[in-house]
Amino acid sequence: MRLTILNGPNLNLLGEREPHIYGTTTLADVEADCRACATRLGASLVFEQSNHEGVLVDMIQAARKNADALIINPAGYSFTSVAMFDALKVFKGPIIEVHISNIHARDEMHRHSKLSAAMTTVICGAGPYGYILAMQAAAHALGRKP
Amino acid sequence: MRLTILNGPNLNLLGEREPHIYGTTTLADVEADCRACATRLGASLVFEQSNHEGVLVDMIQAARKNADALIINPAGYSFTSVAMFDALKVFKGPIIEVHISNIHARDEMHRHSKLSAAMTTVICGAGPYGYILAMQAAAHALGRKP
Amino acid sequence: MRLTILNGPNLNLLGEREPHIYGTTTLADVEADCRACATRLGASLVFEQSNHEGVLVDMIQAARKNADALIINPAGYSFTSVAMFDALKVFKGPIIEVHISNIHARDEMHRHSKLSAAMTTVICGAGPYGYILAMQAAAHALGRKP
Amino acid sequence: MRLTILNGPNLNLLGEREPHIYGTTTLADVEADCRACATRLGASLVFEQSNHEGVLVDMIQAARKNADALIINPAGYSFTSVAMFDALKVFKGPIIEVHISNIHARDEMHRHSKLSAAMTTVICGAGPYGYILAMQAAAHALGRKP
Amino acid sequence: MRLTILNGPNLNLLGEREPHIYGTTTLADVEADCRACATRLGASLVFEQSNHEGVLVDMIQAARKNADALIINPAGYSFTSVAMFDALKVFKGPIIEVHISNIHARDEMHRHSKLSAAMTTVICGAGPYGYILAMQAAAHALGRKP
Amino acid sequence: MRLTILNGPNLNLLGEREPHIYGTTTLADVEADCRACATRLGASLVFEQSNHEGVLVDMIQAARKNADALIINPAGYSFTSVAMFDALKVFKGPIIEVHISNIHARDEMHRHSKLSAAMTTVICGAGPYGYILAMQAAAHALGRKP
Amino acid sequence: MRLTILNGPNLNLLGEREPHIYGTTTLADVEADCRACATRLGASLVFEQSNHEGVLVDMIQAARKNADALIINPAGYSFTSVAMFDALKVFKGPIIEVHISNIHARDEMHRHSKLSAAMTTVICGAGPYGYILAMQAAAHALGRKP
Amino acid sequence: MRLTILNGPNLNLLGEREPHIYGTTTLADVEADCRACATRLGASLVFEQSNHEGVLVDMIQAARKNADALIINPAGYSFTSVAMFDALKVFKGPIIEVHISNIHARDEMHRHSKLSAAMTTVICGAGPYGYILAMQAAAHALGRKP
Amino acid sequence: MRLTILNGPNLNLLGEREPHIYGTTTLADVEADCRACATRLGASLVFEQSNHEGVLVDMIQAARKNADALIINPAGYSFTSVAMFDALKVFKGPIIEVHISNIHARDEMHRHSKLSAAMTTVICGAGPYGYILAMQAAAHALGRKP
Amino acid sequence: MRLTILNGPNLNLLGEREPHIYGTTTLADVEADCRACATRLGASLVFEQSNHEGVLVDMIQAARKNADALIINPAGYSFTSVAMFDALKVFKGPIIEVHISNIHARDEMHRHSKLSAAMTTVICGAGPYGYILAMQAAAHALGRKP
Amino acid sequence: MRLTILNGPNLNLLGEREPHIYGTTTLADVEADCRACATRLGASLVFEQSNHEGVLVDMIQAARKNADALIINPAGYSFTSVAMFDALKVFKGPIIEVHISNIHARDEMHRHSKLSAAMTTVICGAGPYGYILAMQAAAHALGRKP
Amino acid sequence: MRLTILNGPNLNLLGEREPHIYGTTTLADVEADCRACATRLGASLVFEQSNHEGVLVDMIQAARKNADALIINPAGYSFTSVAMFDALKVFKGPIIEVHISNIHARDEMHRHSKLSAAMTTVICGAGPYGYILAMQAAAHALGRKP
Repeated sequence: MRLTILNGPNLNLLGEREPHIYGTTTLADVEADCRACATRLGASLVFEQSNHEGVLVDMIQAARKNADALIINPAGYSFTSVAMFDALKVFKGPIIEVHISNIHARDEMHRHSKLSAAMTTVICGAGPYGYILAMQAAAHALGRKP
Repeated sequence: MRLTILNGPNLNLLGEREPHIYGTTTLADVEADCRACATRLGASLVFEQSNHEGVLVDMIQAARKNADALIINPAGYSFTSVAMFDALKVFKGPIIEVHISNIHARDEMHRHSKLSAAMTTVICGAGPYGYILAMQAAAHALGRKP
Repeated sequence: MRLTILNGPNLNLLGEREPHIYGTTTLADVEADCRACATRLGASLVFEQSNHEGVLVDMIQAARKNADALIINPAGYSFTSVAMFDALKVFKGPIIEVHISNIHARDEMHRHSKLSAAMTTVICGAGPYGYILAMQAAAHALGRKP
Repeated sequence: MRLTILNGPNLNLLGEREPHIYGTTTLADVEADCRACATRLGASLVFEQSNHEGVLVDMIQAARKNADALIINPAGYSFTSVAMFDALKVFKGPIIEVHISNIHARDEMHRHSKLSAAMTTVICGAGPYGYILAMQAAAHALGRKP
Repeated sequence: MRLTILNGPNLNLLGEREPHIYGTTTLADVEADCRACATRLGASLVFEQSNHEGVLVDMIQAARKNADALIINPAGYSFTSVAMFDALKVFKGPIIEVHISNIHARDEMHRHSKLSAAMTTVICGAGPYGYILAMQAAAHALGRKP
Repeated sequence: MRLTILNGPNLNLLGEREPHIYGTTTLADVEADCRACATRLGASLVFEQSNHEGVLVDMIQAARKNADALIINPAGYSFTSVAMFDALKVFKGPIIEVHISNIHARDEMHRHSKLSAAMTTVICGAGPYGYILAMQAAAHALGRKP
Repeated sequence: MRLTILNGPNLNLLGEREPHIYGTTTLADVEADCRACATRLGASLVFEQSNHEGVLVDMIQAARKNADALIINPAGYSFTSVAMFDALKVFKGPIIEVHISNIHARDEMHRHSKLSAAMTTVICGAGPYGYILAMQAAAHALGRKP
Repeated sequence: MRLTILNGPNLNLLGEREPHIYGTTTLADVEADCRACATRLGASLVFEQSNHEGVLVDMIQAARKNADALIINPAGYSFTSVAMFDALKVFKGPIIEVHISNIHARDEMHRHSKLSAAMTTVICGAGPYGYILAMQAAAHALGRKP
Repeated sequence: MRLTILNGPNLNLLGEREPHIYGTTTLADVEADCRACATRLGASLVFEQSNHEGVLVDMIQAARKNADALIINPAGYSFTSVAMFDALKVFKGPIIEVHISNIHARDEMHRHSKLSAAMTTVICGAGPYGYILAMQAAAHALGRKP
Repeated sequence: MRLTILNGPNLNLLGEREPHIYGTTTLADVEADCRACATRLGASLVFEQSNHEGVLVDMIQAARKNADALIINPAGYSFTSVAMFDALKVFKGPIIEVHISNIHARDEMHRHSKLSAAMTTVICGAGPYGYILAMQAAAHALGRKP
Repeated sequence: MRLTILNGPNLNLLGEREPHIYGTTTLADVEADCRACATRLGASLVFEQSNHEGVLVDMIQAARKNADALIINPAGYSFTSVAMFDALKVFKGPIIEVHISNIHARDEMHRHSKLSAAMTTVICGAGPYGYILAMQAAAHALGRKP
Repeated sequence: MRLTILNGPNLNLLGEREPHIYGTTTLADVEADCRACATRLGASLVFEQSNHEGVLVDMIQAARKNADALIINPAGYSFTSVAMFDALKVFKGPIIEVHISNIHARDEMHRHSKLSAAMTTVICGAGPYGYILAMQAAAHALGRKP
């Protein structure tokens, strides 16, 4: 089982940016937890971050070859990117969208993810632990027993 | 750890109603899986369903006394009920909203849950397995190691 | 041929409530006319009224077992109830929505029935006689010659 | 009792146009059924079709002299014509709007008839049999026993 | 003079629910104040609460027989219930809507009461004392000198 | 000075249609008053009415050759016709729009004339006398002393 | 016959302000033309201008005593003033709104007069000559022969 | 206890303006009732009316020095004035908005008071008696026993 | 290969109407170019224009019998006609919509063609040469090598 | 170089009103800073404040004679006044709008200045120092070296 | 004649991505066809694709130096990119927008190209053949005989 | 004092692109003026431009380490970028948004900057001189005497 986890713009600042919303865990912490979980699940893991919409489109396209399931926290591009939406539609396996905060309880600009309609599963508001839930959901959708 | 899981209108027909959207698992199947998971987590479990908005408001109020965390699939009332929203705001512990299908990819009438803004965590599109993810999220939010 | 006719909130006050809109016929009068028509059509008839959304959802679910066609005047819940919409989607036979007044010519709040999209046939503005037309439409949809 | 039935644009193609929506009955079939029904009701019948908005306005105006009740399936002009709305407001007798399909369950462009607010009765989704129901509704509104 | 005071969903939690908005007075306190005021006004008093929309519709209908004036705090159903709106339209005497907080200064979901258009008088933001003002308004509307 | 006055759909029923809005003057009366006024102004007059949008487009095009100024009461097509708007844009002389009633005080469907943006002058709510004011405005715009 | 003509904000700059829209005639020129017309009509004339919304409300109220008909060019307050709307509703005689330019062909902010719904007659786009047409319309509405 | 009561535009015409909405009581009658009530409450009273938005802003500012509580019927400025909203935000004591009619049941232009969000309490639809209720609400908010 | 080209309202004035938008080519020029192109493509050609919506509906219906592909410049009816939309849906072959100007860069009223959703191909802004491109697109869609 | 600085409603309360938004500097402090800056720039300065929309219109009109550039903080009238917009359009020199707070980050009612479209330059969120920046911008626009 | 053809995000997946919408032709196939067409037209050709908005902006800017006409299929950025819109406005020669599918018949998110207003010509729904039509349109706009 | 000035897409074309809006000053000219001003202020200066949203996000993140204040002209990304908004929210010092033209007076697409809500100060319409005002505002916000 091959998993790819993609992180959108400003997530490289996790733990530092608006900690009252996102907490103090860093992206390195999240990656470590995900790698431990991948080991438990017997899965290989690609874990990437980019601030560039085009790079994220490239990464989603690459996942078609390299991954059985895709997990993505699109951050700020959730609310604007049709290009990423179109790229996601090409991916055949399950896709899980993760948001650390509950976006439905935030301000108008951060409330409606355009990308959700291209997802298999959406998880938000579980904090960084949402990444672990997403990996389990991916495994389950692929017929594994998480 | 005491968990309450509430199910909204028409979920008693799960497995029979619009199976192309909701699958063939019945609510009894879901309850059995949740009870097994509760045992693994060392948690007690209340598992209820009602077609009545007022009864669901009563149940949410009752959970204030009887539960540490609340999991709710509000079904059709997700999209209309201010009374349930107000009741949820009184509950002190974590609340996890579950939808079997990815509501963000459905028709306009079933796309925007009014209740999500009152939630700690929202999980949708993971199928009936979403209940298990929700129980894990609840346990994690209460400081347990799921 | 088994028919169920359901009546929504405040229809128990028919003949008394806003008679300039709904006329002076009572719900008992309507029931009598419908029973006479059922006899003519050789049909059995369940005829119910409730002010409770949840009870109406229960009744719609019960009709799956007990009725070949469903006729419903959802009254005030026409404009708000997603729960009833979802319940109606499970019913396999023809469903006919009846409104005594022409709702399209009324005020904004009473103009757009959310439930109509789940219907086979919609009849409004024919007064209480609309129930008789609905029974004929049901019979016709079931292949009977009304 | 004199009845006029008017049919709007493209209904001359009935049975041929989008049969998954409108069925395979032709307008000639509908007319034959209506004539048989008129005989049963002891009514005279004018039955017309036109693709021209202006011609339909002329026909509605003519009905003021020639008809006690008016039945109209305005088809595509339902959604745009203020001129027909104004003409209908002059007609003194009952007017019944018929749509073969349930327009409330169709796409946005075909969902809200502007003309319904000028109607006595609206019937949609009963298939071609809706014309027969409309004739009965007209007879009933004129004090006849259909 | 017979008065009925009805309280909507979650008001049984008054004093406990979101005290920064609603204060610490309980519904029992409010009832006591209202009963004292009724004595001063020489009025009989029915004082009820329910979380169920249908039960509230039943109570409003019952008030037609049992009350000269109706006072109602519809709480969460203020913002959604057409069924209660329709029931209120049947009541012949004065109806006074009370909200403890100033709903006009709250969030979008709690700002526009659908029911206000069916009221004689609306009072909001006066805290629990608003019930006393409402009883005086009712008495005044009935020609009594409060 | 050559004037053309065009009248849109249902104006042939003037005096008979919704007299509480349009009064009891007939179109023949209006034409007689306009002809008398044309004599006073030393103008020739074409005075036409049609229920057909296409015919009105033809007439507007013809006015390019036959008229120095155009006066039009577009009635129901005021609110829908882009084709007439485009035709009016080709006319070089002054164009005056007339409405017998004050459309700004009517219902939503009859309130915003799409054609007004193509006009030199708009007059509404002066009753049939608005035609006389329009003729004077046309004469004045052509440099005549009305 | 007593006429009052009121002019709203910035009309004191007529002839100087945006001459490509309003022309080079000054308000003094307009007043002179109106006084000549009043003499022809045998009418007395009050002719005022103010930049102050409150002063215009006072003037409208004063017209109840001093005028049989009211002519008003509300200029910038056309688009915002509910206070003037309410004042106009008290005036018993005919009220004619005048705009020098055709506001319907202008930018969004200057297109929809809120006040028009309180008017008997609306005239726009006839240039300063619109004041003369308005006086004639007023005379006609009062039963005089202009 | 010092109270200031401010009245907005056209309230000087109370009793004369649209009596089917506002009744026949004059503003002088209202003032007399308020003065009697002030005496009962042991309060001094400033009672003013103006048609000018700027004057009302001045009066609200003055109340900061001269009043413990402010009662205001902003009439037509309720629906438009941001300047008054800003002035009210500076006032430290309780503010009570009064409308004689139930504005929530009126036309669109008179339905949503922009100022309500700056209020402590809002009372509408109690007729002129609403001023007395407002004075009691003010006294109660200041800790007096009305 | 049989082609039909239909032209909507006011296109008979091409070359004369708003030449800054549409240029100076006349419809006869366009027809000549299209006939030359048809010869090159070995196609027969029907080329029509009408200002009447109903006539255009008739022509579209006729094309079902007489044409393998349909090219249409609906002009002003692009923005309003549901009747033409419905007629186009019956045509089995490819349909190409042509606009001489780039409608997407024009004013709001001329920007969104309602008919485009019924088209195979849409070409706008290529000037009269767009007709030639449309004929090539039609030929290509029919499997010809243009 | 002659400069006029106008201040809108409630700015006389600067330093006292909502200090968390506007700070504690008073309008007198602002005026002193502006006068010092005017001296540095070699400019004469008119500095005014009014709560009255009409007075502000008068002042803007006066500036046409007395000022080479206009600086205005329209405060609450920013969001409502078409009359001031129209007056500003007559001023020939540069106009600079100043807001002490960043209105774009405030609530909906205070976010979109209607007047900005009439401005040369807009500066907001620089605190009272924005007045100094505005004076420099005015000098620069007039070809002075600030 | 120098032509540049730019392709936006995900078009590198053409033939593989949503083939029911875009067909099975690959971008290499399209490029080959375009190169053959360029040879026929005697034109040089730059043919590029990128998933990066910024890179596309760079390419558009480069085309100012290197191309006489620009053809662009902006794909997902059609619906969001103001930066590309601004870049296109600087290009002096003709610009042709191509979409393989008829975007006007797709879902809401893919229906309105923001970029079309900056185009000379728009062609959509002609499949990959649309590129050839676009090259002809470009040649024609440059005065060549395609 | 360390300042960073960032310039968004197409600003590298300043002086060449739409000079009627942006003038003929080039970005090199602007940089020279800013460097002179920095010297006067005793500040170091980073001055960058990019057409890439992701690169701009990177630069904003870098400014957290390298700058005390940030000045940004986001150009086309002003109207779309949530990713830049989120990045700006992490910056602790003052941020000043600059637009050369008055965007509030431009077309709909260029009117509402999404980024303004994340700014300390916004300056638009002062031409290239706006950069100098922004540097002064930054210095002032940092407690320097500009």
